[in-house]
Amino acid sequence: METISIDLDNKGYSIHIESNLLARIPTLLDPADSWAVITDEMVNSLYGQSLLENWPSDLVHMIMLPVGEAVKSLQTVEEVAGKMLELGMTRHSAVLALGGGVVGDVAGFCASIYMRGIRYIQVPTTLLAQVDSSVGGKTGVNLPQGKNIMGSFYQPQGVFIDTQTLSTLPKRHLISGMGEVIKYGVIYDYEFLGYLGSHMADILNLEEAVIKNVIRRCCEIKAEVVAKDEKEQGLRKILNCGHTVGHALEAARKYRQYTHGEAVLIGLYVETLMAEKIGLIDEDYCNEILDLVQKTGIDVKFEVPLERLIRSMLKDKKNRARRVSFILPSGKGETSEVFLTEQEALGLLRML
Amino acid sequence: METISIDLDNKGYSIHIESNLLARIPTLLDPADSWAVITDEMVNSLYGQSLLENWPSDLVHMIMLPVGEAVKSLQTVEEVAGKMLELGMTRHSAVLALGGGVVGDVAGFCASIYMRGIRYIQVPTTLLAQVDSSVGGKTGVNLPQGKNIMGSFYQPQGVFIDTQTLSTLPKRHLISGMGEVIKYGVIYDYEFLGYLGSHMADILNLEEAVIKNVIRRCCEIKAEVVAKDEKEQGLRKILNCGHTVGHALEAARKYRQYTHGEAVLIGLYVETLMAEKIGLIDEDYCNEILDLVQKTGIDVKFEVPLERLIRSMLKDKKNRARRVSFILPSGKGETSEVFLTEQEALGLLRML
Repeated sequence: METISIDLDNKGYSIHIESNLLARIPTLLDPADSWAVITDEMVNSLYGQSLLENWPSDLVHMIMLPVGEAVKSLQTVEEVAGKMLELGMTRHSAVLALGGGVVGDVAGFCASIYMRGIRYIQVPTTLLAQVDSSVGGKTGVNLPQGKNIMGSFYQPQGVFIDTQTLSTLPKRHLISGMGEVIKYGVIYDYEFLGYLGSHMADILNLEEAVIKNVIRRCCEIKAEVVAKDEKEQGLRKILNCGHTVGHALEAARKYRQYTHGEAVLIGLYVETLMAEKIGLIDEDYCNEILDLVQKTGIDVKFEVPLERLIRSMLKDKKNRARRVSFILPSGKGETSEVFLTEQEALGLLRML
Repeated sequence: METISIDLDNKGYSIHIESNLLARIPTLLDPADSWAVITDEMVNSLYGQSLLENWPSDLVHMIMLPVGEAVKSLQTVEEVAGKMLELGMTRHSAVLALGGGVVGDVAGFCASIYMRGIRYIQVPTTLLAQVDSSVGGKTGVNLPQGKNIMGSFYQPQGVFIDTQTLSTLPKRHLISGMGEVIKYGVIYDYEFLGYLGSHMADILNLEEAVIKNVIRRCCEIKAEVVAKDEKEQGLRKILNCGHTVGHALEAARKYRQYTHGEAVLIGLYVETLMAEKIGLIDEDYCNEILDLVQKTGIDVKFEVPLERLIRSMLKDKKNRARRVSFILPSGKGETSEVFLTEQEALGLLRML
């Protein structure tokens, strides 16, 4: 089993990566007086049984969410917490999130505010969740007026990644996960970017050794960044590379057309072009990133009017004084934060 | 101005106590890009104008809650946060809670989860909030199934107590506040208990020097306890003296008959009798506490069936393995945690 430590004052934890790990997880957990496994119906039908195989049934309850982003609401949080209370869960109980990013975000947020915070464990089952959302302690739900507006920084007690779960992941979601994977190369590790370039086919074919390598390196990078800046005061912002355009694309299409990962892939493509246009990176490095994004098979063309895109960007949590924040590549494995006014951003996007 | 420091790693803050402080508060705050003052209609009509007097109006927005406990819900949190977002509040904005315990709990919880946490300031206007709920960082709302089930430990950036606001507080709520005040003497400071005994009339008459002394000492004790145990792993539990019976009384009457403070006063009375009955304290000390509670003018008789009371206690967050936790006086200025089964608790209550 590969283990990565994430180093935080008083609340460090480990990320474990292994194939066929699910059934062993209950034996690896610190005891709790009861557990709620929060999952969705689809993931439960695929993996619920493996997880529960070695778990005394009087200790564990399943709480099922419907599939999809609409479940990320305070309404869901209220329903889940109500069930936890009716199940007799106490401050000494714990939550296990089994699923993709949506399940992890909702379950983590519930754990962070149920009785002012109980322990939780992440068991991510999508590539996106394995390399990104399950690590680092960001939890949250949406408001009708905006995505991820309500949430907390709340670290899990452990992350267990069973790479075998990727075998049932639809190809579209595998490609989505590559947005965050490529991002780690762009922001932090040029050598890793090269590795991705020469192993893209193996990754998309779920070649065991390669996929494990990729997940491990992504988790290592995220762990390093989060350990240095848990609450996004500074360094952690680099994780938002590709996300200013990505979030705006998702929002402009009302979260229906693009998955988060697809939007990030397109966002990385567009923001790389922006960086080249304002002279932050040269044409060769620009093309290297663009080629890598295209190797995933994503279609980078989009048909959202640029004015609409900018309007969405103006709501970004990273903005300051009505200037839009972009985390742009500025060197091999390096980024810079650039603030642009509405007009500047629009002008630049029109030039691409 | 009296100032008490509360000493917490990386997030210590000060409690300021002074008469006629409201209008000066805006000049004492660290800058934020905008402020939301969260208050209720009654408090706003009394004190809104004083607070806003010296505050540039483009920097501050009022968000009004209805009066009463029903407002402590996730529904309210969603509405308040939606307004904050529509007002353009960012991670660099801040919240000021102006009001009693309910306003402070809701506003603090909103601040703790809006964009994963923004700064907030407590300006408590009831005795209960000034000596208890505004200090220590407990925030939260209710679920339909239980009180304060959803919440966070989230410290304010400062607490500003204007003792002048007590002049408009109905007598009933002044008496309510005395439940928590007497509790501090019982759990931590026998000398303070004596002071309360000899100054009860001055307190209820809002004698300026005495009331300031009382609030200061309560805040000092709470600050010491919270600094040693922010997240209620151990010592902080002593703050729940009187609260096991108190909470159960409130719940059994569906939060309609008793204010929280009244229930705590009666809870202190009953739990002191319990402590004497099981030999934790002697009769003299028992009578000293009982006399003090009665000096406030509270009627300690209650007409809730004991079985109903016990059923409520079984839902207490402090319980372990279905045993009910009581924090009982066990010496002058000292308490012990005692766990009783349903039957033991019922038997003991029947003997009183």
